[in-house]
Amino acid sequence: MNKTGQPVLGNGWPMFEKTAAPSIVSPYVLAAGSQPLLHYHSSAFIEYFADTVKKYQQIMKTKNDVVIVQGDALLALEAAAYGLIAPGDKCLNVVSGYYGKGYEGWINTYGGKTIEIAVEYNQAVPVEAVEKALNENPDIKVLSIVQSETPSGTINPAKEICQLAYQRGVITIVDSASGVASTDVNIDEWKADVVVAASEKCIGAPPGLSMVAVSDRAWDKMKKKNPPRWSEMCLLDWKEMWIDADRATFPCTPSVSLVYAISVAADEILAEGIDNVVARHAQCAKAFRAGLRAMGLETWAATEDIAANSCTTFKCPAGVDTDEFCHYVNEKYGLFMITGIGEHAKIIIGFEHMGNAANPIMVPTYLAMIGKAFAHFGIKLDIAVGEAAVLRLI
Amino acid sequence: MNKTGQPVLGNGWPMFEKTAAPSIVSPYVLAAGSQPLLHYHSSAFIEYFADTVKKYQQIMKTKNDVVIVQGDALLALEAAAYGLIAPGDKCLNVVSGYYGKGYEGWINTYGGKTIEIAVEYNQAVPVEAVEKALNENPDIKVLSIVQSETPSGTINPAKEICQLAYQRGVITIVDSASGVASTDVNIDEWKADVVVAASEKCIGAPPGLSMVAVSDRAWDKMKKKNPPRWSEMCLLDWKEMWIDADRATFPCTPSVSLVYAISVAADEILAEGIDNVVARHAQCAKAFRAGLRAMGLETWAATEDIAANSCTTFKCPAGVDTDEFCHYVNEKYGLFMITGIGEHAKIIIGFEHMGNAANPIMVPTYLAMIGKAFAHFGIKLDIAVGEAAVLRLI
Amino acid sequence: MNKTGQPVLGNGWPMFEKTAAPSIVSPYVLAAGSQPLLHYHSSAFIEYFADTVKKYQQIMKTKNDVVIVQGDALLALEAAAYGLIAPGDKCLNVVSGYYGKGYEGWINTYGGKTIEIAVEYNQAVPVEAVEKALNENPDIKVLSIVQSETPSGTINPAKEICQLAYQRGVITIVDSASGVASTDVNIDEWKADVVVAASEKCIGAPPGLSMVAVSDRAWDKMKKKNPPRWSEMCLLDWKEMWIDADRATFPCTPSVSLVYAISVAADEILAEGIDNVVARHAQCAKAFRAGLRAMGLETWAATEDIAANSCTTFKCPAGVDTDEFCHYVNEKYGLFMITGIGEHAKIIIGFEHMGNAANPIMVPTYLAMIGKAFAHFGIKLDIAVGEAAVLRLI
Amino acid sequence: MNKTGQPVLGNGWPMFEKTAAPSIVSPYVLAAGSQPLLHYHSSAFIEYFADTVKKYQQIMKTKNDVVIVQGDALLALEAAAYGLIAPGDKCLNVVSGYYGKGYEGWINTYGGKTIEIAVEYNQAVPVEAVEKALNENPDIKVLSIVQSETPSGTINPAKEICQLAYQRGVITIVDSASGVASTDVNIDEWKADVVVAASEKCIGAPPGLSMVAVSDRAWDKMKKKNPPRWSEMCLLDWKEMWIDADRATFPCTPSVSLVYAISVAADEILAEGIDNVVARHAQCAKAFRAGLRAMGLETWAATEDIAANSCTTFKCPAGVDTDEFCHYVNEKYGLFMITGIGEHAKIIIGFEHMGNAANPIMVPTYLAMIGKAFAHFGIKLDIAVGEAAVLRLI
Repeated sequence: MNKTGQPVLGNGWPMFEKTAAPSIVSPYVLAAGSQPLLHYHSSAFIEYFADTVKKYQQIMKTKNDVVIVQGDALLALEAAAYGLIAPGDKCLNVVSGYYGKGYEGWINTYGGKTIEIAVEYNQAVPVEAVEKALNENPDIKVLSIVQSETPSGTINPAKEICQLAYQRGVITIVDSASGVASTDVNIDEWKADVVVAASEKCIGAPPGLSMVAVSDRAWDKMKKKNPPRWSEMCLLDWKEMWIDADRATFPCTPSVSLVYAISVAADEILAEGIDNVVARHAQCAKAFRAGLRAMGLETWAATEDIAANSCTTFKCPAGVDTDEFCHYVNEKYGLFMITGIGEHAKIIIGFEHMGNAANPIMVPTYLAMIGKAFAHFGIKLDIAVGEAAVLRLI
Repeated sequence: MNKTGQPVLGNGWPMFEKTAAPSIVSPYVLAAGSQPLLHYHSSAFIEYFADTVKKYQQIMKTKNDVVIVQGDALLALEAAAYGLIAPGDKCLNVVSGYYGKGYEGWINTYGGKTIEIAVEYNQAVPVEAVEKALNENPDIKVLSIVQSETPSGTINPAKEICQLAYQRGVITIVDSASGVASTDVNIDEWKADVVVAASEKCIGAPPGLSMVAVSDRAWDKMKKKNPPRWSEMCLLDWKEMWIDADRATFPCTPSVSLVYAISVAADEILAEGIDNVVARHAQCAKAFRAGLRAMGLETWAATEDIAANSCTTFKCPAGVDTDEFCHYVNEKYGLFMITGIGEHAKIIIGFEHMGNAANPIMVPTYLAMIGKAFAHFGIKLDIAVGEAAVLRLI
Repeated sequence: MNKTGQPVLGNGWPMFEKTAAPSIVSPYVLAAGSQPLLHYHSSAFIEYFADTVKKYQQIMKTKNDVVIVQGDALLALEAAAYGLIAPGDKCLNVVSGYYGKGYEGWINTYGGKTIEIAVEYNQAVPVEAVEKALNENPDIKVLSIVQSETPSGTINPAKEICQLAYQRGVITIVDSASGVASTDVNIDEWKADVVVAASEKCIGAPPGLSMVAVSDRAWDKMKKKNPPRWSEMCLLDWKEMWIDADRATFPCTPSVSLVYAISVAADEILAEGIDNVVARHAQCAKAFRAGLRAMGLETWAATEDIAANSCTTFKCPAGVDTDEFCHYVNEKYGLFMITGIGEHAKIIIGFEHMGNAANPIMVPTYLAMIGKAFAHFGIKLDIAVGEAAVLRLI
Repeated sequence: MNKTGQPVLGNGWPMFEKTAAPSIVSPYVLAAGSQPLLHYHSSAFIEYFADTVKKYQQIMKTKNDVVIVQGDALLALEAAAYGLIAPGDKCLNVVSGYYGKGYEGWINTYGGKTIEIAVEYNQAVPVEAVEKALNENPDIKVLSIVQSETPSGTINPAKEICQLAYQRGVITIVDSASGVASTDVNIDEWKADVVVAASEKCIGAPPGLSMVAVSDRAWDKMKKKNPPRWSEMCLLDWKEMWIDADRATFPCTPSVSLVYAISVAADEILAEGIDNVVARHAQCAKAFRAGLRAMGLETWAATEDIAANSCTTFKCPAGVDTDEFCHYVNEKYGLFMITGIGEHAKIIIGFEHMGNAANPIMVPTYLAMIGKAFAHFGIKLDIAVGEAAVLRLI
């Protein structure tokens, strides 16, 4: 902290300095969060909020209702279980990473019975495996899947899986926290029921809100379950008090300043074009992976086509501690990298190129940072060769 | 909205223009919310967060753990029930207003059995009535109470009630959303178990976070209940992953920008002195009530000693529609007033003098706004007489 | 300063806390000043600047060129002399206050010969006196006048005087630093040649820029004088490099962030309507003066019709030191008041109700602040009677 | 402009988007400029300003008075002439670029007689040539020199030249607008009399203010000349009203918000350490030049030791229009590059790596941007070879 109570910008490059969780947030989005606050009961704010919802329907390509849950993706994902999983419901949990595995907890909380399809955490779940499981268990009620597994840096074929489920009347809950804006998330084409995006990932806003698209089928199932109202967990509160009400009111106190931020983030995405934003993430990720490999690192995703656009993971060379590496690269260059989770904590390292950080022309610098940092730990990588590979792709 | 996408400041006084929910937020607090975001996994942010917690221990006068719940008071209050109310637990719910009554819903959700003590919504619950109920029901496990009922503009004797409960081993859950910083909340003296404050009330920050003080007794009861972890509802996640962990980590994604805001709000409160902040709210409220009555309105709280420092309510004169009045005063002067809730919606009107709005020297203008607005609706009040009464108290 | 390096907000009311110089600046205008900076050579900024100029042509009601001088009114006013006053030019200097008197210095610097018409500093200069002087001195080349004398709290009949001068081919230089946006400044109707407005007065932006409207007659006289170019003093630089150039470039480095601020300030003025803004200043000033007098103070302007809308001055009651009073009212309430200048320093006190501070509904609080502060110094004023007078006018 | 009235961030990397003039400004510095404004007459602001001055004395390594001129470097540099050059004074003007040549205009304005030493604009002026001129003209009163010629991307040996002048009683005026914070400017060691730094260059703040260090010898000469007071041009106003006054007052209206910005910019510089800031600029410039040359471009400065740390210039390859190139690189990548001025407009291109833009680890990306942009114009550069050269130096 410097004299002004703010973090010291040690190396003259504030955007890299231990930057946001995890995307780089545009200064206009940040500034939006400090506008004077409209009262959340004012008609001006109610209009503003409704307008913001519409922007996210565009971004998520859906005519379904979108609820802006006043909490992070954890709250939104559990809220889906709260509303959709009734005691005894058989739930197919598709697992290819940490967050996929985690969903089982909520299935248990609400009395569901979990059937799991799991693969190694550098793999994607094959569509065929899901189809087989669905066919073998025609009484499955709910399917939960993580589309973009951030800690693994991989994606699952959510579109095909959701369509399979849809045909069978199975309700899908899709964690697309880091998928929206980095991959083509087309909810109406997917026929997905509940899709959750996180404000702080590829949308490029501060953390704290989740955008949740909910299909009519999902609302129907929730109404049937009829869970307690007046709860942050209860999406039906939004349906009844906000979406379907004659006079829209908030079922809770909305985080006004964060709503401003995501609204301006949406403006920026729509001004650039959602498909352009996705393409930018894709190009950045592809060039980055090519550079890493060319300079001698091994990327983690089993195949190129399941590597995520939002986060790239690679194996940490032997002899380097992942935590120490991440700490060093952050202190030295301001780049925030993450280690794997759990059993992968000492094995893989990831970099989240999300939001404004997903800029292809920045990859030469990202690569230099990482290469130089490994040199510091005694690992010689051929950074120049890496740069040459990058330059062909940006 | 003007060309800059911001609300038009029609009458030249932006602070009043449909202002924040519901306090006036200091420009420094607002600005804090737009600082570049530290990654929530960075040690710098972890330190910042821990430092912020300490400030709220000071403000809430407690050595108990304080959890900064990443959601509004609704989430925090239900989280208390999630952790503390086990199926079959007998719960004494103390009701003197809308939010008090509402707690029953959560008691039900988690399988508790409600015993209610209720009074009219312009009254406070007598200590004696609570004592009697506790004595008659020695198997009561949990007592829930709203200390400061914002929509009623009244307070309850939380201190005495918490002490009674403490002596009997009853766990107390105190909604002090608008009580902290407007009344003397001394948790350690009260022996209260769970106390919830809201960022957007008298603390004077944007909405979105709740400060929850938790006693060791409460942690023990939660551990005994052992509710599911990895949930925004689960305060134990914070205990285990943040407070007691060797290496503190967040159990969810913290709203970094809101944490900045409440931290600077705490700085301002501590710089002024928490007792001075309380005294300022008290003086403002007292002068405002005196002015209202002197100009001919009837304040709602049954007696002066149970009138809240955070919000003043009064009866709407016959012939004026509460909604129309609030709309007019907001459009004309930018002052945000609220109607009562439910059966009081057409009977009472309130003004929340919270945070920076709680300024005694502003009362002459508040009174002029209200008096002029009633004149617009054909109600003649003697504003000058009201001002004279105010001037004696500021 | 608090821990965040910002001024401590002692009394919970930041807008009053030793507030801006001298108007209260809208939070949107303040925020505009912290937007990321466009390069001043970029076409985006050049367009933005040109657009901003157009807004000020609307506000100042003129088709004349408007130059946004990159400095305060002092620079702009001297720049007028630099361009327009040639050695030997006879200049009529119209003096009714401190700034009027001061213009003589610049007449001298550039070799002009001053003829002065002066009145007491609580008076306005009569049109007839100017007419007489012009008639008696047909060789007068330039007439300089302060339209709104802030330290005196008075205005001069600039319209009539400019029209007289125009008919005689005399170039007029009008200091309307605090006149624009608080009085009806209609340059095209006035036939004024150079009119200077200040960003920080009734326009309600931060200090640092001046808007200077220049007539074709004035440009012609400047070209004839042909002063050195490449100078901040040289308005012709703007004419030649910016206004008339095939490819507009800045003759100096523009203060990009302040340009953002005045542009948003202009948006707010135009959204409200310039005539409404003027009316708001007028009503505020009128009510304030009535209140001061009703509670027992003596306003300074000789007659009501020459009292300024931007600043109200009154005589300090015997026994109170003006400096001590201003210091007290600022420390206690955050209201920034000013003493007179020079020989009036210990005689008069002023309050600048400019920009967002010019809000009629705020007058009851302004009056209470001043009345209470005098009570602190042992002067008993009947504040309630003052309030009653105010209430009839707001 | 997007819907929020702000420039569209087309390529997801706002810091590069037509960025500031010309440095990248830290978000904390930007934010400082939107803090609520203290009144410039308040003791709080007077203290703040005095404190800011002290920071710049540290940065400029001087015990001399530092005046914060309320305008850009143009104003400050002319102000030096206004105060120091009396009619008939013989002035040695040292010219190695556009700004050096330009000083002659001000010498003429104030009646000085210019003796010029000029070199090609890719050269530095040799110390010996200056010594010879001083020896041959013992009646020289003033020497003017640009230490860091931004458009040329070159520096002059200001230290040695100032010391020579000092020994001979010649007053020196040093334009170090882009020198301070990018080169070791040690005024007390140099014995320089007037040194001007610009807020928007390597100090990394928005444009609009200049820091001017003034020696006692310079004050004495000004007092002897005794130019008109009450002028933005008059540094003596600051000496008499601010520095030496019993009660400090501002001779003009200070740009409060810009003062906030430069104060926080100074905090950042001092937190990093002024020598570290200089070293960062030096390393960035060196690596950048090496990369440019390695990929096939010809840098402009005649020798490596006179190349500036603040701005690098290179020859534009034949067949590419400098303006079109700069426009393309700005539109495509957000990087703001400049063409030469005057006869060099179509010959050289420059990039200002100032403030936060002066980050060695960013050079790989800068190089990729420039290389890719030339490829767009059909010029094949070996970017990978350039990157390899850069990687050895960062």
